Amino acid sequence: MNIDDLILISVDDHVVEPPDMFEGHIPARYKDAAPKVVTKDDGTDAWVFEGQEATNVGLNAVAGRPPDEYGVEPTKFSEMRPGCFNPADRLADMDIGGVEASLCFPTFPRFCGQTFLERRDKDLALLCVRAYNDWMIDEWCGDSRGRLIPLCLIPLWDPQRAAEEVHRNAARGCRAIAFSENPAALKLPSIHDAERAWDPLLAACDETGTVICMHIGSSSRLTTSSRDAPAAVMSSLTHINAEISLADWLLSGHLARFPDLTIAYSEGQIGWMPYVLERVDKVWENTRAWGGVEDLVPEPPSSYFRGRVFGCLFDDTTGLVLRDRIGIDQITFEVDYPHQDSTWPDSMAIVEAFAPMLTDEELEKVLRGNAIRMLGLEREGSMT
Amino acid sequence: MNIDDLILISVDDHVVEPPDMFEGHIPARYKDAAPKVVTKDDGTDAWVFEGQEATNVGLNAVAGRPPDEYGVEPTKFSEMRPGCFNPADRLADMDIGGVEASLCFPTFPRFCGQTFLERRDKDLALLCVRAYNDWMIDEWCGDSRGRLIPLCLIPLWDPQRAAEEVHRNAARGCRAIAFSENPAALKLPSIHDAERAWDPLLAACDETGTVICMHIGSSSRLTTSSRDAPAAVMSSLTHINAEISLADWLLSGHLARFPDLTIAYSEGQIGWMPYVLERVDKVWENTRAWGGVEDLVPEPPSSYFRGRVFGCLFDDTTGLVLRDRIGIDQITFEVDYPHQDSTWPDSMAIVEAFAPMLTDEELEKVLRGNAIRMLGLEREGSMT
Repeated sequence: MNIDDLILISVDDHVVEPPDMFEGHIPARYKDAAPKVVTKDDGTDAWVFEGQEATNVGLNAVAGRPPDEYGVEPTKFSEMRPGCFNPADRLADMDIGGVEASLCFPTFPRFCGQTFLERRDKDLALLCVRAYNDWMIDEWCGDSRGRLIPLCLIPLWDPQRAAEEVHRNAARGCRAIAFSENPAALKLPSIHDAERAWDPLLAACDETGTVICMHIGSSSRLTTSSRDAPAAVMSSLTHINAEISLADWLLSGHLARFPDLTIAYSEGQIGWMPYVLERVDKVWENTRAWGGVEDLVPEPPSSYFRGRVFGCLFDDTTGLVLRDRIGIDQITFEVDYPHQDSTWPDSMAIVEAFAPMLTDEELEKVLRGNAIRMLGLEREGSMT
Repeated sequence: MNIDDLILISVDDHVVEPPDMFEGHIPARYKDAAPKVVTKDDGTDAWVFEGQEATNVGLNAVAGRPPDEYGVEPTKFSEMRPGCFNPADRLADMDIGGVEASLCFPTFPRFCGQTFLERRDKDLALLCVRAYNDWMIDEWCGDSRGRLIPLCLIPLWDPQRAAEEVHRNAARGCRAIAFSENPAALKLPSIHDAERAWDPLLAACDETGTVICMHIGSSSRLTTSSRDAPAAVMSSLTHINAEISLADWLLSGHLARFPDLTIAYSEGQIGWMPYVLERVDKVWENTRAWGGVEDLVPEPPSSYFRGRVFGCLFDDTTGLVLRDRIGIDQITFEVDYPHQDSTWPDSMAIVEAFAPMLTDEELEKVLRGNAIRMLGLEREGSMT
C-alpha cells in the first residue's frame, strides 16, 4: 500500500510493553526493584513487580489470529504478533490496515496506570510512570515520524504531581493522557470531590491542550448482569462504562470551569450518546427547581459537549445515523489493534460499508480530521 | 375533557396501595400478621410487616406538587394526591392528563414484589402476593371499565408457584406480570441459570400471552458513578438497568425457546436501544467461532426483538428519530404518574412536541395501538 493511500487515524490501539521497556528509563539504584519480565517454568511470561506476578503480558493481544483462537489469551511474547510490542512491526501492520497514525493505550500498566497506583512504594511508582512516558515518547513513538502518537500516564495518586507530569510531557509534544473513567472506583477522589482534588490535573490539561482519554475498563470494572451470564453479555455492554462517565462529567461542572478542557472516550462507541445528551438536559431542567446542579453547570449539560467531548467508533452505524445529534466534529475512529474487538486488518472494509452514509467531508472528519484536531497534531507540525 | 378525546395508554404508572389493601384478601388466621399501615408518633405513616417498618408508603408520589417540592418524599397518605391510591380519583386524574388507560406498578411491594421475597414466612408472603393480585384485579381495576389495566405480582422465590399465579390471573383477564430486570441481583437464579430455574414461569407466560414487565429498579439497584455524585447522575442513568437487561435477555436464548414470550421495559425509554441491538449482533457474530451463545441463540439476537420486546418512552426524541431501527410496533408510551419523571398532567404537551416527527399511523401505534396489542386488551373486549 502506498503511504498516500493511508487515511485512517486510530485514536484507540494498544501497545504491549516489551520486556526491556524500563531499561535505561529507571535510575540505577532502582534497577533491581523495577518491573521485570520473567519466563516461568511453564514457559509463560509474566511481569514481576513488588513480588507480584502479572500474567497479562499480552492481554487480549490476538491480532492476526483466526477468530476461533480469540478466546485464548496469549501467555508469552512469542505467541503475539511482533506488531504488538515492536514499533517498526507496528508501522508495517498499520500499513497493512490502512492506518496512518495511532494512539496506543498501555497493557502492563493497565488502561490508565492502575498497576502503578496499586504499588506500595510510590516513589518507585512515580519513577515507573515517568519511565513509561519517556519510553512511550522516545522509543515507541520516537522514529515513527508522527505515526505513533504519544499517550502518557500520570501518577493517579497525586494530582499535583500528575499536573507536573502533564506539563513535562506537553513540553515535548504529548497532548494526551490516560485517565480513569471513574476514579472513585479506584478508591481515589471522585470527580465530584468537595475539595476539588483533581483541579491541579484539570488545570494542567486545560492550559496545555492535553486531552483526557478514558478507555472502557479504566475504572478496573466492566458491566455484566450476573456471574453465569455468557461472556457476550459483558462484551455487548462495555460502552456502559463510557455512558456512566459521560453523564458524570457533563454534570460535574468541570467543562464549565475549565473552558479549554477536552475529554475523549476510547472504545466506548457513540450510538448511545444522543440519548444520554437528551436525558441529562431534561434531568438538569427538571431538577433546577430543587437545587440540582445548576450552580456547577450553569447551562444545559449538553451545551458543553460540542468541541469538548470526543467519542470514537470502531463499528457503529447507529452513531453515524445520529451524527447530527452528536456533532460530526466529535466523532473519531479507532482500530483497537491488537484486541478482540479490533477490525484490523479489515478496518477499511468497515469504513467502506459505512462510507455511503456520510459526505466526503464528514468521512474525512471521522477518519482523520477530528483526531488531528483533538490531539493537536497540526500544532506539532506532523500532520495537516 | 370528553372521553372521546382520550387517546393515551400509559404502560407505566404507579399505584400507592391504600391502608386497607389487604382487608378481605388475607385469610382470617393471618389477619394479625398481614402488613398494616400504622401512623407513628411523628404523624408519618408506615407499612409494618414481620416487625419491619417500611416508610415508603408513597415513594416519590409527587404528582400535583410544584417542582421545587419534588425532592421531598411524602411521608403519609394525607400528603399525597388521592389519585395515588383511590381508583376513582385516579380516573379523574387520568381524564385531566388525557390518559385513556393505565398499567400501574406497585409501591409497598416494590417494583416486582421484592418486599414479599424478602420476608421469612413464605406461606404468608405467597398469600400477600395473591392478596395484592386479587386487590389489583377486583378493587384497583374492578370498576374502571378496562381503563385501569391489571399488572400482577408473582412469588419470585418459587417459579412453579409463580407459573400457577400467572395461570390463575390470566384466567381472569390479566396479561401482565412484574418481573425483575435482573433476578440475580435479588439473589435469585439468573436468567442464564444452568438448571433453567425460570422455565415454569416463562412457559406459563408464553402459554397465556402474559407479558413480562420489567421496571427500572426492579433489581433493587440503580446505577451511579460514586457516592458523592449529584443525584442528577443517577437520574440520568436509570435506563442503564434496562440496557443491561435487554442484552441479557437477547443473549439468554429464552426468546428463541419460547416463541410467544414477550417482554417489556418500563421507564427505560428507547433511544439507547438501537446501539444495543447493533452491538449484540456484532458480538454474537464475532464470538460464533469460539463458542459464544450460538447454541442458545441460533439467529442474530436482534432478530428476536421485533414483536417480542417492547420499550416505552416518556420523553425521548432520540428514540423516535431511530424508530425504524427499533421498529415502530415495539414502542409504547408512559406517563409515570405520580413520580418525579412523570409528564402528568402535561403529557399531551410532550406528545404535541414530538407528534410532527411521526405519521398519524405511527403516532397512534406509539400512544395506544402497541399497548393494546402488547397487553392483549383487544382479546378482553375492553378496547379495539
